[in-house]
Amino acid sequence: MASALPPLAVSLGDPAGIGPEVVAKCWDNRAAFGLPPFVAVGDARSLELVWDGPIEQIDDLHDADAAFDVGLPLLHIPCSEIHRLGYPSIIGAHCSLDSLELAVGLARSGSAGAVVTGPVSKQQLYAIGFAHPGQTEFVAERCGISPANVAMMLAGPTLRTVPVTTHVPFANVAGLLSSAMIESRGRVTLRGLQRNFGIAEPRLAVAALNPHAGEGGALGREDIDIIQPAIDALRAEGWDVTGPMPADTMFHTAARSRYDAALCMYHDQALIPLKALHFEEGVNVTLGLPIVRTAPDHGTAFDIAGQDIADPRAMAAAIRLAASSAALRR
Amino acid sequence: MASALPPLAVSLGDPAGIGPEVVAKCWDNRAAFGLPPFVAVGDARSLELVWDGPIEQIDDLHDADAAFDVGLPLLHIPCSEIHRLGYPSIIGAHCSLDSLELAVGLARSGSAGAVVTGPVSKQQLYAIGFAHPGQTEFVAERCGISPANVAMMLAGPTLRTVPVTTHVPFANVAGLLSSAMIESRGRVTLRGLQRNFGIAEPRLAVAALNPHAGEGGALGREDIDIIQPAIDALRAEGWDVTGPMPADTMFHTAARSRYDAALCMYHDQALIPLKALHFEEGVNVTLGLPIVRTAPDHGTAFDIAGQDIADPRAMAAAIRLAASSAALRR
Repeated sequence: MASALPPLAVSLGDPAGIGPEVVAKCWDNRAAFGLPPFVAVGDARSLELVWDGPIEQIDDLHDADAAFDVGLPLLHIPCSEIHRLGYPSIIGAHCSLDSLELAVGLARSGSAGAVVTGPVSKQQLYAIGFAHPGQTEFVAERCGISPANVAMMLAGPTLRTVPVTTHVPFANVAGLLSSAMIESRGRVTLRGLQRNFGIAEPRLAVAALNPHAGEGGALGREDIDIIQPAIDALRAEGWDVTGPMPADTMFHTAARSRYDAALCMYHDQALIPLKALHFEEGVNVTLGLPIVRTAPDHGTAFDIAGQDIADPRAMAAAIRLAASSAALRR
Repeated sequence: MASALPPLAVSLGDPAGIGPEVVAKCWDNRAAFGLPPFVAVGDARSLELVWDGPIEQIDDLHDADAAFDVGLPLLHIPCSEIHRLGYPSIIGAHCSLDSLELAVGLARSGSAGAVVTGPVSKQQLYAIGFAHPGQTEFVAERCGISPANVAMMLAGPTLRTVPVTTHVPFANVAGLLSSAMIESRGRVTLRGLQRNFGIAEPRLAVAALNPHAGEGGALGREDIDIIQPAIDALRAEGWDVTGPMPADTMFHTAARSRYDAALCMYHDQALIPLKALHFEEGVNVTLGLPIVRTAPDHGTAFDIAGQDIADPRAMAAAIRLAASSAALRR
């Protein structure tokens, strides 16, 4: 008999952002959103500032399922101080890092079924010496995986995209792309579609870099010289890979039905269609890890923190996807 | 008393593509699509190959309105030969160029209220010595306007985008951008929103080039050094201009409601969101001309020509927009 899935660990992210609010709203709407038991990881005061619902502080994840029926289970990680809502600070950065560290550790140890990470302020994290570009790379390193071997997937109800290059200047993108990098990201994505989404024979569509896929080289040669060899290499391994596809015509309804994920060459190529179509429900998934990690695809939104207007749907989608992925991987 | 709008001239485009089919289907569905009288310009045989509806050949556009009730009015431009459907040829290029030339001339002279251009094969046009990048530049030149002073807008029901650079290699985009070019395209766009769309106080959103709008320069400086000065210059003239906006978060429903057009830095930045949201109804509008010119935002689709499966909605939207723009400008 398969054992039940351990509860999910959800880090609250920056205490001055909307993370605590959307996690609390997920517990409020746990039935409507179809959410499995999860445990918040962070400072109780960051929740109390924005929410008057019941908090069930626990010390042991084994108590989470029972607590979840009564209130929002919380592993309380005290911060030195809870800063004013909407105002990023290095104290908030320490809080978010501590809760991230514990949540990831719980998933690594198997005590938690997966980790869902709330939004953090990168700027404040950098100010306290955080040496990773973002939470994705931090999680990868804690799992002993090189960040080069993971892939950041953005997943919505009708589209999944994976950028090959991410947070780099636009002008550097063409020079950074290599066949090896595209091939590696493609392989991680294909395996991730199998492991996290249960798609036995995944279909990957690879976007071209140049307009109209370069029109045979007239509008740029990267599609021929760099992207095509990566596609050929993946096909030679037996994967179902198409492209390079003109990026403007691969995201309409009919086109999306022909693949399970789109491999994109740069940040906005992946994020523009995902957010145009699924802004409220985008989930960030890290593929290539020994654990399941998801996150809502939005930031701290300091500008609306504490106003009770933050939309919890992306956090709910991140929790649901973490649960379904973890169940598939057991 | 305002005189009635002259009929619109619709060039059939390449006779081996889907242009004739979608124009004929527009006449078939003229009531359902809400279309005003229009006149097809091209070879009668290209219509007869794909359609058995009534064709009303006319010689004088004054006869168009009466003819439109009986059949599809046509200014017959005989080609030397009608090539096989789906097979591009230089003969087809000559046909499409002749009908384009006449249709534009009719709009220039005022005999036609506007020109709507069917899809052509650029490759075949180049083969017969066509020296313009596309129909847009050809129309501009026939109107005595430098192509540098027009703007290509893609318009859908909930989004309008204008790319600053268009059909150039991705790697060249950053180097090609200049404040002067962005400012000029922005001004043409704002005036076009007034003249073609009747928006008295148009709002323009300018997309950033780099991810997250460059994060204060950490991810590229073009947003600060090149795009911001163009925005400042337009604002100094009194225009309502916002940006540089992170491109991934400017195309969701709520964001789109805050501007009338998005000025984008490159082809796919403008075309990805437009086609993801409005693939079937995208209209290409040339702004900055003394005449009104629109086109469906799709190509010749040689692969499906003659199969009676081409979707006429984009052509219908192009005809409707040409009519409403022409009426506004009278």
